[in-house]
Amino acid sequence: MISKAENPSPNERQYVLTLSCPDDTGIVAKLSTFLAEHGAWIVEAGYFTDDNSSRFFTRQAVRAESVNISFEEFSAAFDELAESFGPGTRWRIWDTARNKKAVILVSKEGHCLHDLLGRVAQNDYPMDVAAVIGNHEDLRDIAEAHGVPFACVPFPKDAVGKRKSFDQVAELVNAHNPDAVVLARFMQILPPDLCEMWEGKALNIHHSFLPSFMGARPYHQAHRRGVKLIGATCHYATQDLDDGPIIEQDVIRISHKDTPADMQRLGRDAEKIVLARGLRFHLEDRVQVYGNRTVIFD
Amino acid sequence: MISKAENPSPNERQYVLTLSCPDDTGIVAKLSTFLAEHGAWIVEAGYFTDDNSSRFFTRQAVRAESVNISFEEFSAAFDELAESFGPGTRWRIWDTARNKKAVILVSKEGHCLHDLLGRVAQNDYPMDVAAVIGNHEDLRDIAEAHGVPFACVPFPKDAVGKRKSFDQVAELVNAHNPDAVVLARFMQILPPDLCEMWEGKALNIHHSFLPSFMGARPYHQAHRRGVKLIGATCHYATQDLDDGPIIEQDVIRISHKDTPADMQRLGRDAEKIVLARGLRFHLEDRVQVYGNRTVIFD
Amino acid sequence: MISKAENPSPNERQYVLTLSCPDDTGIVAKLSTFLAEHGAWIVEAGYFTDDNSSRFFTRQAVRAESVNISFEEFSAAFDELAESFGPGTRWRIWDTARNKKAVILVSKEGHCLHDLLGRVAQNDYPMDVAAVIGNHEDLRDIAEAHGVPFACVPFPKDAVGKRKSFDQVAELVNAHNPDAVVLARFMQILPPDLCEMWEGKALNIHHSFLPSFMGARPYHQAHRRGVKLIGATCHYATQDLDDGPIIEQDVIRISHKDTPADMQRLGRDAEKIVLARGLRFHLEDRVQVYGNRTVIFD
Amino acid sequence: MISKAENPSPNERQYVLTLSCPDDTGIVAKLSTFLAEHGAWIVEAGYFTDDNSSRFFTRQAVRAESVNISFEEFSAAFDELAESFGPGTRWRIWDTARNKKAVILVSKEGHCLHDLLGRVAQNDYPMDVAAVIGNHEDLRDIAEAHGVPFACVPFPKDAVGKRKSFDQVAELVNAHNPDAVVLARFMQILPPDLCEMWEGKALNIHHSFLPSFMGARPYHQAHRRGVKLIGATCHYATQDLDDGPIIEQDVIRISHKDTPADMQRLGRDAEKIVLARGLRFHLEDRVQVYGNRTVIFD
Repeated sequence: MISKAENPSPNERQYVLTLSCPDDTGIVAKLSTFLAEHGAWIVEAGYFTDDNSSRFFTRQAVRAESVNISFEEFSAAFDELAESFGPGTRWRIWDTARNKKAVILVSKEGHCLHDLLGRVAQNDYPMDVAAVIGNHEDLRDIAEAHGVPFACVPFPKDAVGKRKSFDQVAELVNAHNPDAVVLARFMQILPPDLCEMWEGKALNIHHSFLPSFMGARPYHQAHRRGVKLIGATCHYATQDLDDGPIIEQDVIRISHKDTPADMQRLGRDAEKIVLARGLRFHLEDRVQVYGNRTVIFD
Repeated sequence: MISKAENPSPNERQYVLTLSCPDDTGIVAKLSTFLAEHGAWIVEAGYFTDDNSSRFFTRQAVRAESVNISFEEFSAAFDELAESFGPGTRWRIWDTARNKKAVILVSKEGHCLHDLLGRVAQNDYPMDVAAVIGNHEDLRDIAEAHGVPFACVPFPKDAVGKRKSFDQVAELVNAHNPDAVVLARFMQILPPDLCEMWEGKALNIHHSFLPSFMGARPYHQAHRRGVKLIGATCHYATQDLDDGPIIEQDVIRISHKDTPADMQRLGRDAEKIVLARGLRFHLEDRVQVYGNRTVIFD
Repeated sequence: MISKAENPSPNERQYVLTLSCPDDTGIVAKLSTFLAEHGAWIVEAGYFTDDNSSRFFTRQAVRAESVNISFEEFSAAFDELAESFGPGTRWRIWDTARNKKAVILVSKEGHCLHDLLGRVAQNDYPMDVAAVIGNHEDLRDIAEAHGVPFACVPFPKDAVGKRKSFDQVAELVNAHNPDAVVLARFMQILPPDLCEMWEGKALNIHHSFLPSFMGARPYHQAHRRGVKLIGATCHYATQDLDDGPIIEQDVIRISHKDTPADMQRLGRDAEKIVLARGLRFHLEDRVQVYGNRTVIFD
Repeated sequence: MISKAENPSPNERQYVLTLSCPDDTGIVAKLSTFLAEHGAWIVEAGYFTDDNSSRFFTRQAVRAESVNISFEEFSAAFDELAESFGPGTRWRIWDTARNKKAVILVSKEGHCLHDLLGRVAQNDYPMDVAAVIGNHEDLRDIAEAHGVPFACVPFPKDAVGKRKSFDQVAELVNAHNPDAVVLARFMQILPPDLCEMWEGKALNIHHSFLPSFMGARPYHQAHRRGVKLIGATCHYATQDLDDGPIIEQDVIRISHKDTPADMQRLGRDAEKIVLARGLRFHLEDRVQVYGNRTVIFD
């Protein structure tokens, strides 16, 4: 059995604060004064204002040990400050000493799962994998080899049976109350209620550079169109299929020689990389969604 | 006045043979035996068979000085051989001592024109620019500074006037019998008869990674969709707008910070590069079209 | 004659503040409180602390019209604040209404000059080109076509003559008191005193991905070593040849088929792009140097 | 236990012929006539002549079922033909029905091993992994989970002990007579006699874009130099450390924010990708070495 990461990050403990609110002058001053008052040493800080919506976004990481009160007190004080920014303000604080929890949904194709579990084994992520759930048995062995429980929920073809399977998956997932539900080539379209339930934490990969080649068999579509690049997209799953907020994209060069089968093989590298990067951004609270767009503080 | 390239290629003189025909065993043997019989030293050879259409494609470059007969004799002998491959065979032979001829169509934005003329001044291309035609006067100075004649054909908004302008452009272009008609951000949609007349030699750039964001204002579309990559596509102009055979594509990474205006600025680099590479492939007879796909022997 | 940009940036007027000082808690709070007190609307803000040297770096851009005092008053107030951060603090403030001034040094090869002047003609840069100085006449025409004065200073081979030429170049350059001295493939090694005089404003391009292939003829070195990527580097010129702080780098894929001549042609695209990006970072006060490293707030 | 690929390639059976010899006119004609005479349907063909050494290289893949004699007869006939090309000719023929055999050497870091075994599980490669050999026990579990035997050969620090360990590794490797010895972050420098014994089949990864940052701790070197790109190189191991023929390279963009630890994490993706691609080229007989350079028919 492959030992899991005890301490997934080699870095020092941090408190990560994220906040979005209607833009105004003085927000940064209030925030940084608040941090200074509690001795917080800023390690990383990102700011962005969306001019269309006049919405302000920030992510700040501070050294935990520099803060002169307990995490609970600091967190409560931040709540109080954030509330003063008025209605519509959204904020969060994360103590990196707490690993994020993920459940991974798979089908038969294992490249993304192999990659993610390999990264976890390398301590790349502040993440524990609570469970892998597949609609086939194919990937049980690799999950269990990494010490991760695997559950198989078969998906029948009929609508009623499929719905029951989704309910079973939802129950298994929710039992872990995960920070991330990773659709690692799950191949089943989430019903709207699950998309809503897991809004902003269900990450999907689409194997094209969206919005090109939405829908099924994108590599075959790409071959027919004769494009010179194929790609992959990591996005949040929403009710609008293949139209959720994009977290990360990348492409790979192909040529006339590449068949759809070659593209599938080559594209797997783009899919793995895009999911791995998108998941990191998500786990480290680097992503904030507005409309169907994302701010990424990388 | 900037002197034009006398001898655009520093390389030795070559004969470049391109051929496509129904696939069969023995074609390569016949071709290479033909070349060997005439002493032709092969410098570069590319082969491809499209399995769907069972069509064979090749491009072969041989050292001119190694061929033991004149170019005219060699060309005639190749004609004879190619005809033996049966109906539907298409072939061409190019003596690199003859520069290709191009006419460039522009509007107000100059980045592609600056780039192309800079490359010609550097002897990068086996190409002479016979003329630049613009629907505005903006780029006259730079064309003339490079010693290239500039003609301005204004485009009125009404359909009849526009059609007259197109006829005038066509006349100006055809007077040069060019090998390439380069739509370097021309901003006018070619009417079907001109697309047909210049089939396989009118190169267009679309400022998106097609088929994403077809049609107008692709950077604004890209901004709305929240993509993480923008791109550009060099393709042959056909009657199906933005759907012609793709020659080259590339992308540039963007972030949430980039406005449509930023994308326009950043995207210009992709547009220039993609056009420059696509045009090179075209000029050097490296592109063969089948359906709306291209074989590129790069 | 090609008209120069009247107003090189389509964006609103901004004040750009850059500062570096020994790290401490509370610096961000003081800065942002200062900005808030003067009504300054922050458009862009970057922060970085180098853990090795415990040095803090920031760049902040604010909307000029949001500031409730004049630029001179605001600038004076910022001086006062910055001085309070103690010895070793370095800061600057730039009103984007003032275009930066550049002098470009060239030799015979024009690809970088074509590219830069094309960008200026497109209003891409907050920059006026005060002069182009060449050690040959080759690029006079293109400079003058863009309305930029060109001076030719021939460089003899003997050391004494060369030194005189450098003195003449220095005099011509310094007459403009430029913000940037761009060595756009100048092909002459700056003597130490000029490097020192223009410290932090002389940008050079080296046609390799430094530190690979330092010194002469990098493409020939790359060919001999059989690398699969070639590159280019934009860096500040320093007395340690090819060892100055790196601003930007990029690479291009090559294959066994590419000769040193092919690499030269292909590499020109990397050189242009890397210089164009590096120069933008420099002009927009996005670069801060520490040791032989750079912080880039992009 | 994860089942291994029964049939690693979904493609049809092919015979792959590779040959290099002194260049001459007529070689291609002889080869293609030979293929045509035996009914061989060419699926892929690559040619290259190195002008410096006047050496000719080719790789041809033909459909096995199109050949009108047995593989043994075809192979013998090719031997006969190849011998006629004179002394110094090197050739090989591979029946893709036979999987290549690999032994993988590892240490503690598992990212390359995870990736390779994941690819094998996906049937990506025409390869069986005969064994994984590590100088630590860390990666035993993952190897065995994939059904691959794992042997641990500890490496003591003293020269005599180390030499004994190398002898033991060599014995374990050679027992499988592998086509590829993959140094997947093995962290031990092969002694010259092993380099010679495994010439052209021992693939190493160096975690820099060689020739930059040769030797130890390249990410620390890269951080000190302040480069904006880090990379990885897949090359054949030779006696000249880090100077063997390069098969594949790639880079990843970094910024001033990235510490050597960040680079290690980011660089792992480059290492994995570069090894995966380089190994594919090697397994599919796409690589030919001349001097310290490689021809890659991709």
